[in-house]
Amino acid sequence: MDRPEIILAPGPTPIPPEVLLAQGSPLVYHRGPGFGQLMREVTDRLRELYRTESADVFLITSSGTGGLESAVQNVLSPGDEVLVPLAGYFSERWTKLAEAHGLNVRTIEYEWGQKVRPDDLAKALAERPAKAVLLTHSETSTGVIQPVQELARVAREAGALVIVDVVSSLGAVPFAFDEWGIDVAVGGSQKALAASPGLAFVAISDRAWEAHATATLPRFYFDWSIYKEFAERKHPENPWTPAISVTQGLHAALELYFQDGVDVAMKRHRTLSRAVKEGVQALGLDLFGAGLEDNWTVTAIRAPEGIDADTISDRLRSDFGVVIAPGQGPLKGKVFRIGHFGYFSELDIIRGLAALEMTLERLGHPVKRGAAVAAAEGVFQEAPGASNDA
Amino acid sequence: MDRPEIILAPGPTPIPPEVLLAQGSPLVYHRGPGFGQLMREVTDRLRELYRTESADVFLITSSGTGGLESAVQNVLSPGDEVLVPLAGYFSERWTKLAEAHGLNVRTIEYEWGQKVRPDDLAKALAERPAKAVLLTHSETSTGVIQPVQELARVAREAGALVIVDVVSSLGAVPFAFDEWGIDVAVGGSQKALAASPGLAFVAISDRAWEAHATATLPRFYFDWSIYKEFAERKHPENPWTPAISVTQGLHAALELYFQDGVDVAMKRHRTLSRAVKEGVQALGLDLFGAGLEDNWTVTAIRAPEGIDADTISDRLRSDFGVVIAPGQGPLKGKVFRIGHFGYFSELDIIRGLAALEMTLERLGHPVKRGAAVAAAEGVFQEAPGASNDA
Repeated sequence: MDRPEIILAPGPTPIPPEVLLAQGSPLVYHRGPGFGQLMREVTDRLRELYRTESADVFLITSSGTGGLESAVQNVLSPGDEVLVPLAGYFSERWTKLAEAHGLNVRTIEYEWGQKVRPDDLAKALAERPAKAVLLTHSETSTGVIQPVQELARVAREAGALVIVDVVSSLGAVPFAFDEWGIDVAVGGSQKALAASPGLAFVAISDRAWEAHATATLPRFYFDWSIYKEFAERKHPENPWTPAISVTQGLHAALELYFQDGVDVAMKRHRTLSRAVKEGVQALGLDLFGAGLEDNWTVTAIRAPEGIDADTISDRLRSDFGVVIAPGQGPLKGKVFRIGHFGYFSELDIIRGLAALEMTLERLGHPVKRGAAVAAAEGVFQEAPGASNDA
Repeated sequence: MDRPEIILAPGPTPIPPEVLLAQGSPLVYHRGPGFGQLMREVTDRLRELYRTESADVFLITSSGTGGLESAVQNVLSPGDEVLVPLAGYFSERWTKLAEAHGLNVRTIEYEWGQKVRPDDLAKALAERPAKAVLLTHSETSTGVIQPVQELARVAREAGALVIVDVVSSLGAVPFAFDEWGIDVAVGGSQKALAASPGLAFVAISDRAWEAHATATLPRFYFDWSIYKEFAERKHPENPWTPAISVTQGLHAALELYFQDGVDVAMKRHRTLSRAVKEGVQALGLDLFGAGLEDNWTVTAIRAPEGIDADTISDRLRSDFGVVIAPGQGPLKGKVFRIGHFGYFSELDIIRGLAALEMTLERLGHPVKRGAAVAAAEGVFQEAPGASNDA
């Protein structure tokens, strides 16, 4: 019997029934009071999530990558120098994106899985200034949460714009646009908020608007000036026909998210993350990446000696319908990744760990049945109330 | 009591319940066999709709405008000369888009509502060649269907690439990518196919791929090479996390559309268009735009003397929950537009006309009650079977 996939990946994350219903309801027309109210409410909630009073927040119909490209196109000009600390797949995406636009890209290279060191950034900017620093908050390929607050401080002191990919971190781990001095932060609908993919959002500081005024990279679909003009209409609008159904779903997702609020969501993510990490370690597996205690979005796990990590994810899918994420780039075949941010409850994590136990046993790894589940239960018994209905 | 809006606009069009259910169902993960099959089936159907054997067809998570920008970015280089026949809001969008990318834009100007003449295009291209001609098939702002088959022939003979906006025409009026010699055609999910907005699609000819190979405009999110690489994987993928729910809805919409097939859909659109046109004329209103017998997507109607067209659309919404489209650009306040492509049945049109009768009477226009409805009934009695369940 075909059943829905059990998604334990770092986005899209499972969609709550309330969100599915909202995105499966008749559409509200995108030029009129109904959609205007929807946009206003979604934008207000997002501003709260970004922790900003002053930034403009726009919704863009695209994946997160489209939002990242909007950041580059809107504040930079050909030949501008940008600095990218490289420590995984998504920071590499920044470099590719910047190079595609003829920017002068400098990198600070780390092994994948390492944390970027603010001192390295300070040194690099002291050697030669950059117009902007392109950061990745949650490096989804490794699970590492980068120290954006410190990196942003260093970058601002050196006069660089701070542009951050928060696609898989916003709503999952602490972030504070105003307090940290961020200039552009790009989020996505399908991560911690548990809505469907199709919407990116950008928060834009006054400094970013100043840069925008003289930025000459060609842009049209992603041109923030056009978004601003339409957002300021009596009934706020999007310049182009937006993904209305996804916006309706995002509205419902934000309602759910804010039932408990940001702090409870953070606590839930931390607890679920601990349960996954202790669970897989109880099976004798090693974790990958630095600063594990901060990495609440996704856990990268080394495959046991002699087993290809992709075989584990393939068998989890074929035998149990469980979807996890494989390793990317140099980690392909070496690690697999379990997402645990968004709508997950304790029991979602536990069933995933049980599937992993059975899968590893089938692949010849010595498994004490129930060990991962027991370890996760231990975490949940210490910190009850991680599920959504706590 | 809040009810869903009754949408009689040229996109988004009303979404069938089967489509709402599909987009409100649990998501299939975007990297794996399930989504691969979904993409393959959707793409095959779209290829049939485009009437192409050879073109690549990609789905892009964006509005139609994003798809248009992808066409410009992928086949052109800064300074390239493009020719745009200008006859409405959406052909003006082509010029803005091309100018934003530093192209050398020449226009052939018509009054809004006129048909572009192939001879004018031939003459302009004879005077000075262009790298590409940017056409708008269904000029949604006026209702006019432009003679793309003839314009494409002329453009190809002059060695220009033929790039066509078919966002609101694909599936609504006859179109044949291969036979007409089109190079790029950009469609959208929320028009004749009656899916939700959020997906553009592009069909790309071999000639367009040749141009792509040397085109230097900066691009990343919309870069077709990246789409091609992912589409050719064992399980077809999108390079970025796509609007999965909208894709699921589009799949259901295409299933519905192809239950009857393209020819029946065309006939339905023609019949519904006639019913709208004869209905409003029976109220003493005048139609706007050239070639009315070909214009099956949207009808532009002049407001009666002394009544602002925007007042008509505002009152239709406030009094009856009916959403039509206002006039754009120089037609603002002068015309209103009724969409009649997509999922509409005879009775959807009739209730819209009844609402229009009552609204016009309330605004002081002399109305013979039931006259528009009677005229529409006349059309349907002559051509029964226009509704979806015929």
